[in-house]
Amino acid sequence: MTMNRQITLVSHAVGEPKVDNFGMIETAIPEPGAGEFLIRNLYFSLEPAIRGWLEGKESYFPPIPLGGVVRGPSVGKVVKSNNPKYKVGDIVFALNHWEDYSICDDNSILLQTLHPKGDTPVSYYIGALGGSGTTAYVGLHTIGNIQPGMTVVVSAAAGATGSIVGQVAKQRGCTVIGIVGSDDKGELITKEFGFDHAINYKKTPGIAAEVLKVAPEGADIYYDNVGGHTLNEMLLAMKVQGVIICCGMIADYNRTDNPNPITNLWQVVARQLRMQGFLLHYYADKVPEALEMLEKWIAEGKVKVIEHITKGIANTPAAYSELMSGKTTGKALVELDLPEEA
Amino acid sequence: MTMNRQITLVSHAVGEPKVDNFGMIETAIPEPGAGEFLIRNLYFSLEPAIRGWLEGKESYFPPIPLGGVVRGPSVGKVVKSNNPKYKVGDIVFALNHWEDYSICDDNSILLQTLHPKGDTPVSYYIGALGGSGTTAYVGLHTIGNIQPGMTVVVSAAAGATGSIVGQVAKQRGCTVIGIVGSDDKGELITKEFGFDHAINYKKTPGIAAEVLKVAPEGADIYYDNVGGHTLNEMLLAMKVQGVIICCGMIADYNRTDNPNPITNLWQVVARQLRMQGFLLHYYADKVPEALEMLEKWIAEGKVKVIEHITKGIANTPAAYSELMSGKTTGKALVELDLPEEA
Repeated sequence: MTMNRQITLVSHAVGEPKVDNFGMIETAIPEPGAGEFLIRNLYFSLEPAIRGWLEGKESYFPPIPLGGVVRGPSVGKVVKSNNPKYKVGDIVFALNHWEDYSICDDNSILLQTLHPKGDTPVSYYIGALGGSGTTAYVGLHTIGNIQPGMTVVVSAAAGATGSIVGQVAKQRGCTVIGIVGSDDKGELITKEFGFDHAINYKKTPGIAAEVLKVAPEGADIYYDNVGGHTLNEMLLAMKVQGVIICCGMIADYNRTDNPNPITNLWQVVARQLRMQGFLLHYYADKVPEALEMLEKWIAEGKVKVIEHITKGIANTPAAYSELMSGKTTGKALVELDLPEEA
Repeated sequence: MTMNRQITLVSHAVGEPKVDNFGMIETAIPEPGAGEFLIRNLYFSLEPAIRGWLEGKESYFPPIPLGGVVRGPSVGKVVKSNNPKYKVGDIVFALNHWEDYSICDDNSILLQTLHPKGDTPVSYYIGALGGSGTTAYVGLHTIGNIQPGMTVVVSAAAGATGSIVGQVAKQRGCTVIGIVGSDDKGELITKEFGFDHAINYKKTPGIAAEVLKVAPEGADIYYDNVGGHTLNEMLLAMKVQGVIICCGMIADYNRTDNPNPITNLWQVVARQLRMQGFLLHYYADKVPEALEMLEKWIAEGKVKVIEHITKGIANTPAAYSELMSGKTTGKALVELDLPEEA
């Protein structure tokens, strides 16, 4: 292969992203300029946040233009370098694009060199040991001030972040309730991940009532990955002075024009709640501790990692659509086909 | 007068409370038992929070039953006492009822003896120097961590709490924007209270756009007294990592069955906001400092006090309806008629 395959945005997503919102083009592999280096991408990290960039609207990152290559985090191996800090063979993570080869420099967002320990798979470093896992850890500790004995509820509990949230909370001696969208996911989080309880939100109109059945005093911490109806219900199942950690609102990512209305916000006053949003890149100083603890727990088998790996760059659009339809469990990744290494 | 006039709830309020939701009865003046003392009420503090108790639904205090005397904070003078800590002639504040005479004991909620300084009117101690003023001060400092140079926005800015929020923020060296419901109130807060800007929400569909016109970077602190549409708009006018202090949501108090939907909560994640509710009685240790500073600033003329005083217990229902229609400015009080002192 001598070309750079790139996944582009050909039409703005409306509702759940579809395969035909995307295209694939081939361009020349770029040459790194002064201070730059070229990486061969190994994995794409598929993340709900990307959905916000597919509509042509301003968010905390600029929108992806039509015809533009889709932006997303990746892990790659350095293959050419004009930057003394990054040597050929290094494994790096950064916010790049969905393409075989990416150019990076010192200003690349989220750029870091990975140092996989022992036989830990590289892919873990973009999931449980990457943004998903460290976001879970930093959210619970820095925003949530998690303490032993607390009751912690997490939504999208079988997902990349939610599955780590619950397992970290168990390590901290908490009672953990996971909210999921299928009975299979409920089995997964209770039997594999050690959650105390699972609630299938598709089988109950009253998430708050279900939470209060197993935790009559309510939640000290609700780690919210979904927003919408689930958040609205959880406002009715919080302890006084509880904390809602707002990590994502995936319930609205496919419907930003018509977000789910929240009607129980009065509870923020009545129960003296703290709702706090956070983005990991503002808490970079907290990441090393998170990474150290997660590496330790994973090596000891105390935190389990689940991945949903799709092979081949051409399948990226289908894999992303699958993630955003809520059908996957664990960290969704694309593993690139590497014919030049065959 | 030898009877105790009491204002009772005769029908549950629907929407704005009306005069005919209330009645007046006369009962015998009660005798204080062991440990109790009797006060002659001087003022009722009319507060939006009372609205929540008029519907027969559970809130952070139990609902007022039909036929029951309406619960509300009052200031009174001790006239009989079986409690050595409270002597005849003492002036006390507590959560009592709308009646000429109330029985208190050591467990009375919010009970405190007032010590009016110099010629400061007693009524100030249930407004600017009472719950309204200390809530403003504690919210800005303890929840908001107010700092010089910040931009502070407050809603219901001509009200009992809002007018103090803005003036305290000015004392702390902030730029202050008040959101009000009439041009007269806008004049009041800018000309009398020293706010930098006033926005009449009834004259604009876009509160966020109006805020951003005068504060292009947005607000560091939004002190929310109203919730609803104004809160929804302010979510679009906050700085990254800004704080929304949730003190009350009066926009919904008259429509608890059908609260205004909030659709911009995604901003809590995107802007990493902290929204935090608080009730003053959880922060009792912060009140002495608040009171000391407010007394000083009021004595120096740096913080001005505005009161809306209605005379006569029989006019309490009308005064309360007027408050909840949003027509009043400053602290709404009922001054009791005291024929026995005439």
